[in-house]
Amino acid sequence: MSAAALFNGAPAPDLALHRGLHYGDGVFRTCLIYRSQIIDIQEQCDTLNTDAARLGIASVAAPELAREAGELARGHDRAVLKMTLLRAGTARGYRPDGRAADRLLCRYLAPVFPAAAWERGVTAVRSSFRLAAQPALAGIKHLNRLEQVLASRDWPPGTDEALLEDEAGRPVCGTRTNLFWVSAGVLHTPVLDRCGVAGLMRRKILALAERTGLKTDIRAGTWGELDAADEMFLTNSLVGIWPVAACGAWRRPAPGPVTRDLMEQLRHPRLVQP
Amino acid sequence: MSAAALFNGAPAPDLALHRGLHYGDGVFRTCLIYRSQIIDIQEQCDTLNTDAARLGIASVAAPELAREAGELARGHDRAVLKMTLLRAGTARGYRPDGRAADRLLCRYLAPVFPAAAWERGVTAVRSSFRLAAQPALAGIKHLNRLEQVLASRDWPPGTDEALLEDEAGRPVCGTRTNLFWVSAGVLHTPVLDRCGVAGLMRRKILALAERTGLKTDIRAGTWGELDAADEMFLTNSLVGIWPVAACGAWRRPAPGPVTRDLMEQLRHPRLVQP
Repeated sequence: MSAAALFNGAPAPDLALHRGLHYGDGVFRTCLIYRSQIIDIQEQCDTLNTDAARLGIASVAAPELAREAGELARGHDRAVLKMTLLRAGTARGYRPDGRAADRLLCRYLAPVFPAAAWERGVTAVRSSFRLAAQPALAGIKHLNRLEQVLASRDWPPGTDEALLEDEAGRPVCGTRTNLFWVSAGVLHTPVLDRCGVAGLMRRKILALAERTGLKTDIRAGTWGELDAADEMFLTNSLVGIWPVAACGAWRRPAPGPVTRDLMEQLRHPRLVQP
Repeated sequence: MSAAALFNGAPAPDLALHRGLHYGDGVFRTCLIYRSQIIDIQEQCDTLNTDAARLGIASVAAPELAREAGELARGHDRAVLKMTLLRAGTARGYRPDGRAADRLLCRYLAPVFPAAAWERGVTAVRSSFRLAAQPALAGIKHLNRLEQVLASRDWPPGTDEALLEDEAGRPVCGTRTNLFWVSAGVLHTPVLDRCGVAGLMRRKILALAERTGLKTDIRAGTWGELDAADEMFLTNSLVGIWPVAACGAWRRPAPGPVTRDLMEQLRHPRLVQP
């Protein structure tokens, strides 16, 4: 079963002139399809609309979006759904002439990973790529993703994720994951007000921490703090929580106790290699 | 005659899954078609390939590109040609799995402007939008253009272009033009090593200045320098040189003598309202 796409509910769009392609004028969410259901579909639709609003793009009725997404998910045990809202328009010129949105829903085969990724942790590297500071776009999952493309070009073999830094040289996130670490029983994650993408899984983890009384600290940290961390993990809506076992010289048995506890509470399906 | 597109030489592509749309993983040039010819086609093809190389995208043979572009230009008195090179691929995931390029050529109706734009100058405003500093992407005409979209959203009526600043609050360029000013007989234009797009017309103007013995100064300037300028103008491959008559409180008879001289030497066709 290969990839499939629906554009405003219909197949086979001609997007050659669309401003989504020419300017990246849109936002997206990546969701996990598990047993024909889309995990967190309501929150994903809401966040998609919230991000769209920051670009001045009209929202799409969440029930309609969820219904169309459900059609693509039906009959799929594990797959990936990407929901995209694009500012409508095919005229040339940066200046938007409205807020109308086109919706693009794409279904892909789910990636699979060795079970060891969750059971013994993944390997991250510290990338030398620095994310630009742009408060107007920070936190939004938008279609301008060249930084992530460039940052993931030259990974050493055996790398599962690269960690990126901000303009001041502080760790921010992975190329496709949010970053957390645990120090002295406190859960840390970088603030994302100048760069980085605020994933839905990041929000879920922070809510989970709050519910369970785990103290959290959301602010810019340093590589030194990361080097001294007791535990480290990465999150996104596909993998859930990936414990980190190695990041450069940093090595820890993974998952550590706090990470393991969060994973058990999260109960996220695993995309395990058969 | 409406817009038309050729994707790898064929019409009607399905780009719903293309990484050009999902990540903006590509570069482009905007060219003027005048009397069935594409102005500076050779230089445009070369610059397109140079920009593509910076993203690790393979080059396309310039003669093939020029031939296809010529097909789209034939029979058009004035039109716009947009040449785009996209990293080929429809798989999900930022990490590029190769350098292969897809080419997309689009022809649009030419925009038209009042003759006064060239004869008496245009009105620019100083935008409060700051371009992020990203040396890895600076100067490249790539498809991640959300900053330009956002910066051109809220223009006051009567505005022809908005000038943007860098992270240090220094003027860099317009949303779709490069910026020049003249002070005490010296031609100034901002350096573009941290943000901004290096247009082909900017390069032509600098070459023209060199040939005619006009002293040039390429470095970051300040709004104060701009406020004290004798002349100011904007450039791109469609309008050529647009003299600026007003920018905030700054007002000057336009075009000034140095600008007029450059315009006369450039002899760029004008997209004048009939």
